Amino acid sequence: MTEVLISEVGPRDGLQNCKAIMPTEEKKRWIAALHEAGLKEIEVGSFVSPKLLPQMADTGEITRFAKTLPGLEVAVLVPNLKGAQLAIDAGADKLTIPLSVSETHSIRNIRRTHDQVIDEAKAISDLIASQPEGQRPHLEGSLSTAFGCTIEGAIPEAQILKLATRLMGAGCDEVGLSDTTGYADPASIKKLIRAVRAEVGAEYVTGVHLHNTRGLGLANALAAFEEGITTFDASQAGLGGCPTSPGASGNIVTEDLVFMFESMGISTGVNLEKLMACRPLLSNSLPDEDLYGFTPDAGLPLGFTQEPAGLTAS
Amino acid sequence: MTEVLISEVGPRDGLQNCKAIMPTEEKKRWIAALHEAGLKEIEVGSFVSPKLLPQMADTGEITRFAKTLPGLEVAVLVPNLKGAQLAIDAGADKLTIPLSVSETHSIRNIRRTHDQVIDEAKAISDLIASQPEGQRPHLEGSLSTAFGCTIEGAIPEAQILKLATRLMGAGCDEVGLSDTTGYADPASIKKLIRAVRAEVGAEYVTGVHLHNTRGLGLANALAAFEEGITTFDASQAGLGGCPTSPGASGNIVTEDLVFMFESMGISTGVNLEKLMACRPLLSNSLPDEDLYGFTPDAGLPLGFTQEPAGLTAS
Repeated sequence: MTEVLISEVGPRDGLQNCKAIMPTEEKKRWIAALHEAGLKEIEVGSFVSPKLLPQMADTGEITRFAKTLPGLEVAVLVPNLKGAQLAIDAGADKLTIPLSVSETHSIRNIRRTHDQVIDEAKAISDLIASQPEGQRPHLEGSLSTAFGCTIEGAIPEAQILKLATRLMGAGCDEVGLSDTTGYADPASIKKLIRAVRAEVGAEYVTGVHLHNTRGLGLANALAAFEEGITTFDASQAGLGGCPTSPGASGNIVTEDLVFMFESMGISTGVNLEKLMACRPLLSNSLPDEDLYGFTPDAGLPLGFTQEPAGLTAS
Repeated sequence: MTEVLISEVGPRDGLQNCKAIMPTEEKKRWIAALHEAGLKEIEVGSFVSPKLLPQMADTGEITRFAKTLPGLEVAVLVPNLKGAQLAIDAGADKLTIPLSVSETHSIRNIRRTHDQVIDEAKAISDLIASQPEGQRPHLEGSLSTAFGCTIEGAIPEAQILKLATRLMGAGCDEVGLSDTTGYADPASIKKLIRAVRAEVGAEYVTGVHLHNTRGLGLANALAAFEEGITTFDASQAGLGGCPTSPGASGNIVTEDLVFMFESMGISTGVNLEKLMACRPLLSNSLPDEDLYGFTPDAGLPLGFTQEPAGLTAS
């Protein structure tokens, strides 16, 4: 395999964890610049109550804008049927419904039991099926806290496998694995990917969402890649992902992830120089946010070049 | 393989890159605490001119002290024959002579050509051979800038292989690979390890010295581990290793590396709680130095436990 898909989640996971609200026009400029840098999939927002997350209040407009960018897979988060309806109305290409495999976390976080989230996934899947052919977005069920929960600790693998099966049974097109808490390590990454793939079929498990809480983000991405995972969530400048402390980004940093893969000769389609040139759009809009990234800080190695695909992606 | 050796280089690579000079008695307390935490090999200093590196002026005394710690492999850096003589006099168990595979870097950094460094390695090896049996330290030739040089860029593999062979021919017991510049990626790590092992024999290539300049340090360590490397240099709090910018540690952080391996069920012999408890010894002695480490910042995951070996190592 010589290609991976980087799914940029900064506009969703990043911005929803920032205190400041990024103005709609500045979001559009950032997303357009990310697309121009070669990112082929961007999670642009979350269809949640604007009372809960005012940062995401413009997700409809942002989704419609992102749909005008040629070839971009426009992804959004939808916690429920209402959000899914809004996402479909706006023309989103991919919907992700999160299911925390820790039921305690699920109840505390979104006040829903596992049964309730599965019911919601089924309702969303039915809604998608009722759309005209060619207008049915892809539905991903994302297993969050899959590598451990800060309340429950490790979650039994049997429980995770059962929930993966139930999400697929509810009509999801795939299941993703999320290290929400930064508890994963390369061995647990490989073990769980193998187990879930054996349970629901390898073709339905292609993506991971990793955090860098304990510095293992890129090592975990490497382990997932070695297991055949092809889609990697990441956030420009490590924005969001609930960083727990100064210096510790939450989400893995898109720039560092792209640097790793491109250095290895694995094409991301992303031009690193152009990607790094997007950072001022963030620092100008969000002057109080820390921007992370080892590669942007250190600069590219002398003689570093990208495959033509990376240089001409946009 | 379920065990690795972490070689703590903070007292050498860390302290020689700090502006402040750590007082001898405080160095001793730190080294003793690291040993107590379970570290089995510590590079305690460098036998260089105290005019060039006053931070290392007490390496003789420190080496003699470290030799009193039960079971500790006491490693030192020696750039030349004079340093090797002092190291042997002090009773060091392991001597490392660095050879930059970039000749430009070698000349600028230590004013020596490749031929001159090889001659020095031969002289050191002869000196070791002249010692009484049982008092002959292990000699490692360390190939620095092996993954690229900030002046020359990539160094041809053929040149690296030739230098590895010449170091072994000069009498080194092993050769190590050093990513001095943070240019390595998991693919180049695997490729070079395989090539050098094929050239000089796998049993003579067991250790790597990695930097985290571009955030790939742990991913590179994972790649090296997967290739069968068993010894990993690291520095507590990421001290030293020429950090190029704020937030970017130079050396890989011992705490994060130990966390990765222990999480994977690979024993390091190091107790993470005890290791992290050593950090105040550094911050007290070196108040102006930034201490890095994602795991110390985030804390250990809920329910994290270490194998008995890790808990009782000291």
